[in-house]
Amino acid sequence: MGLETSMYNLTPPKHLTPHLLRFIVSELRPVRGARDFYPEDARLRSWLFSHFKEVSRTFAFEEYDAPIVESESIYTRKSGEEITDQIYNFEDKGGRRISLRPEMTPSLARLIIQKAPVLSFPLKWYSIPQCWRYERMTRGRKREHYQWNMDIIGVENTSAEVELLSAIISLFERVGLSKEDVGIRISNRKLLQELLSNMGTPENQFSEICVVLDKMHKLSKEDIFENLSQLGLSEDISSEIFDMLKIQDISTFEQKLGADSEAVSELKELFNLADSCSITEWLSFDASIVRGLSYYTGTVFEAFDKKQDFRAICGGGRYDKLLSSFNATDMPCCGFGFGDVVIMEILQERNLLPSLLQNTDDVVFFMEDSLREVAMKVSTILRKNGRSVDLIMKSKKVKKALKYANKIGASRLIMITPDEWEKESIRIKDMASGEESELLLSKL
Amino acid sequence: MGLETSMYNLTPPKHLTPHLLRFIVSELRPVRGARDFYPEDARLRSWLFSHFKEVSRTFAFEEYDAPIVESESIYTRKSGEEITDQIYNFEDKGGRRISLRPEMTPSLARLIIQKAPVLSFPLKWYSIPQCWRYERMTRGRKREHYQWNMDIIGVENTSAEVELLSAIISLFERVGLSKEDVGIRISNRKLLQELLSNMGTPENQFSEICVVLDKMHKLSKEDIFENLSQLGLSEDISSEIFDMLKIQDISTFEQKLGADSEAVSELKELFNLADSCSITEWLSFDASIVRGLSYYTGTVFEAFDKKQDFRAICGGGRYDKLLSSFNATDMPCCGFGFGDVVIMEILQERNLLPSLLQNTDDVVFFMEDSLREVAMKVSTILRKNGRSVDLIMKSKKVKKALKYANKIGASRLIMITPDEWEKESIRIKDMASGEESELLLSKL
Repeated sequence: MGLETSMYNLTPPKHLTPHLLRFIVSELRPVRGARDFYPEDARLRSWLFSHFKEVSRTFAFEEYDAPIVESESIYTRKSGEEITDQIYNFEDKGGRRISLRPEMTPSLARLIIQKAPVLSFPLKWYSIPQCWRYERMTRGRKREHYQWNMDIIGVENTSAEVELLSAIISLFERVGLSKEDVGIRISNRKLLQELLSNMGTPENQFSEICVVLDKMHKLSKEDIFENLSQLGLSEDISSEIFDMLKIQDISTFEQKLGADSEAVSELKELFNLADSCSITEWLSFDASIVRGLSYYTGTVFEAFDKKQDFRAICGGGRYDKLLSSFNATDMPCCGFGFGDVVIMEILQERNLLPSLLQNTDDVVFFMEDSLREVAMKVSTILRKNGRSVDLIMKSKKVKKALKYANKIGASRLIMITPDEWEKESIRIKDMASGEESELLLSKL
Repeated sequence: MGLETSMYNLTPPKHLTPHLLRFIVSELRPVRGARDFYPEDARLRSWLFSHFKEVSRTFAFEEYDAPIVESESIYTRKSGEEITDQIYNFEDKGGRRISLRPEMTPSLARLIIQKAPVLSFPLKWYSIPQCWRYERMTRGRKREHYQWNMDIIGVENTSAEVELLSAIISLFERVGLSKEDVGIRISNRKLLQELLSNMGTPENQFSEICVVLDKMHKLSKEDIFENLSQLGLSEDISSEIFDMLKIQDISTFEQKLGADSEAVSELKELFNLADSCSITEWLSFDASIVRGLSYYTGTVFEAFDKKQDFRAICGGGRYDKLLSSFNATDMPCCGFGFGDVVIMEILQERNLLPSLLQNTDDVVFFMEDSLREVAMKVSTILRKNGRSVDLIMKSKKVKKALKYANKIGASRLIMITPDEWEKESIRIKDMASGEESELLLSKL
C-alpha cells in the first residue's frame, strides 16, 4: 500500500509491450496539462490546503463554492486579458456555451448578486476551487491549478486589503517562508488613472490600458506602445506612463499628483494599517504592478519569491466595479487568488516540503488463514476506539508484517498468532520502543 | 457576514427590476443541475466530507485524486449502461473528445495501470470526486454530485468486500443512522452467471444482461424480456432469471447451483466474515441486486433507506476484469461509490443534519475610527495565538457588535473602546457567561 516513487519521476515500466506503451501514452495519461494525484501527491495537496483553511479560519472567513462549469458569458469581458483568451470552453448537448472556470471571482460575483438581498454584509468568504485554462504550458503553469481565494465584500476602506495581505503573510509563515524569501509588491490603479486624467486622456479605456501594461515584462516596449496607441494613447503619454511605472516610492507620486490624490492617500493608509499588523517588512510599493485582469479598480498586489526565479505566487486587489458589469449594484470588493503550483515549486526548491507518512495507528495481521476472522474482529474493536487500522488481508509472516509497519510509519503492530490466540490473546508491538506485550482480546 | 436563509429557500428579492430578474434566471444561476455552495451549504458539505475522510482514515485508506476532465474513451464501454449514455462530453480546442467524469472507477483504473510496476499492492485508496452526467433531473439526482469512493486493489478474498461494507456502516453510525433506518442488500453476479451457464447460455453477453436486469424496477417485464431477447435469451430463460431474482435466501441457490458453486461459497464467506465485524444485522441477501455498471464480476451491493423513500444511497462490488478492458493485466478489485445528495436528503428528512455555526473564537470591534489600528493590532496578536478572529472593519456601537457576536456564536467579544484604550486596555466579554474583564494590551 503506498507509492514507491513520485509521479514526477515516472520511469517507463520494463514489462510493457509497445502496444500497451502507446496506449498508456495516449489513453492512460491524464488530459494534457492536468495532474493525477497519487496518495503521496494527495497528502501534500491536503497539507497545503489545510494551511489555506487554517489561515482562513483564523481570519474568520467562511468557505463557499460554485460549480466548476459555468456559463461562458460570465467570463466574456471586453479586453485582451490573457485569462479570457484562454477559456476552456465548450458547447453542451443543449447548445449552451459553457466553460470550465478560469478563475473564481465571476462565480463569486454571481453568488453575491443572486442573493444580495438576503446576505448580511460585509462578507468574508474563501474557497479553494480548481481552475482551468486552455493554453500553452510553461514552468509553474499547467492547464489546471487549485487557487485559494479570499474575498471581502462590502468594506470600502483599506483595512480590507490589509486583512488579505496579513492572511497571505500568515500562510507564508506557516509553511516556513520568511520575508527574506518572499515579498508582496503593492500599487494602486488609481495612480495611473489620475495620471491619465491629468493628461486629459479619456477614462473609458482605462481597464484595457491596464491589461496592456501588465504585459510590460513579457512584450517589447515597441509592442506595448503599439498596443497603447491602438487604445488612443500618443507616444508621449505612453512614454510618461512607462517612466511612471518605474517609480518605487509613494512620495514622488504625492508630488506629482498633489496632496488630495486618492491613490496616494489609499496607499499611505494601507501601509499605515499594515504597520499595526506588523507586516510592513513583507511589503513594498511598486508602481509597475498593474495586474492582468480588467476588473481591478484600486489597490493591486502580487507576491513574489525575492530571487524572482518563479512566476507570481499570488495576486489580488480591489474590484469595486465588478458587480455593475453584471447589471447589479456595485459593492466595494477586494480579494486575491493564490495558486497551488508556484508555492509548491518554491517550497520544493527550498526543501520546505514535509515528508508525510500515512498516519496509520495500527497494522493488524494474522499468521494463518484460520485467524482471519479474529483479525477482523480485532480491527473492528480498534476502529471503534477511533484508531486508524490497516488490516493486512492475507496471512503474513511476522518479519514481512514488521517491515511493512515500519515502512508506513505505523505506531503499533498487532499480531494475531496461533500461540497467543490459543489463550484468546493478541500480541502488540510498539513500533517506536520495540516493546511487545500480550493482551486478552476481552481487554482490548 | 453570513447567510440569512438557505439557498434552498430563495425568495425573489423585491428590489429587482424585471430586466435584472431575467438576467439572474439566465445568467446568474449555476449551470443546469449544478449546485452553488453558500457558506451554510459549504459547512454541511464539509461536515459530511469530514465523516467520509475520518472513516477512510480509521480503515487506513489513502486519498488519491484525478482530473475532473478525462478522455472520453475511458468511459466508452459496449453496453446500455445509463452512466455511459449520459456522459457530459465535449470536443476541446485541439479536437480531442473529452468528458467530465461520470464516475471515478475508470480514472482509478487509469492511475493503477499507469504505475502498476511501481505501486505496492494491495492498495486501499479513497477519493471524494465531483462527478457529472448530462441527464434529466429527478429527486435526489442532479447533474453533478460528490461521490465518496473507497477501493481495494489486489485482494481476491471477500475480506475486501467486508472491509468496504464495514466502512459504509461506520459512516452510517457516525451520522446517526441505525440499522432500523438503513440497510445494505447484497448479491453476487456469479449466481446469475452460473445459472446461465447451467442453462447453456453463452457467456459473452453476460455483462450486458446484467445492465438490462438492473432496470427491472424501472421498465415493464415486457420491455425487459424484449431487451433480453435482443441479447439472445429465450422467453423461458428470461422467465427463469426473473424467478431467480426474487429468491431471498442463499440456501435455495445452494440447492439450485450445487455445493461447489463459487457464487454461493463467496456469499457464505462474506456473511461469515461480516459476523466477525458485527455488521450482519445491517446486511441482507437479495438476488435482485445486480447493479447497472457492466464491469462488476462478483459481489454487488446497494445501501437503501428501509422505507425505500429514496434512491440507493451507495453501491459497489467486485470488478476483477476491469483492467483488462484497458489492455492491462487484471487484478482483483472491489469498491463502492457513495454520493452526497441522497444521504443528505435522508439525514434532512430524519432531522439528523447538525446546525453548524461559523466556529469563530473572537469578534473584535472598535467604537471610533481612531481605534481601527488598535483593533487590527489586537486581532493580529490573537490570531498569532491561533484564535479565529472576526475583525469588524467599521466602527460599531457595543449593542450592534454584541448582537452580531451572538448571532455567529462567537466565544468572546473583544471591545476596543476609548475609555479602556486610554489605559492601553481592552475589554473582553465571555459570550457564554456574560462576564466582562479588562486586560492590558501588553498582557494579551
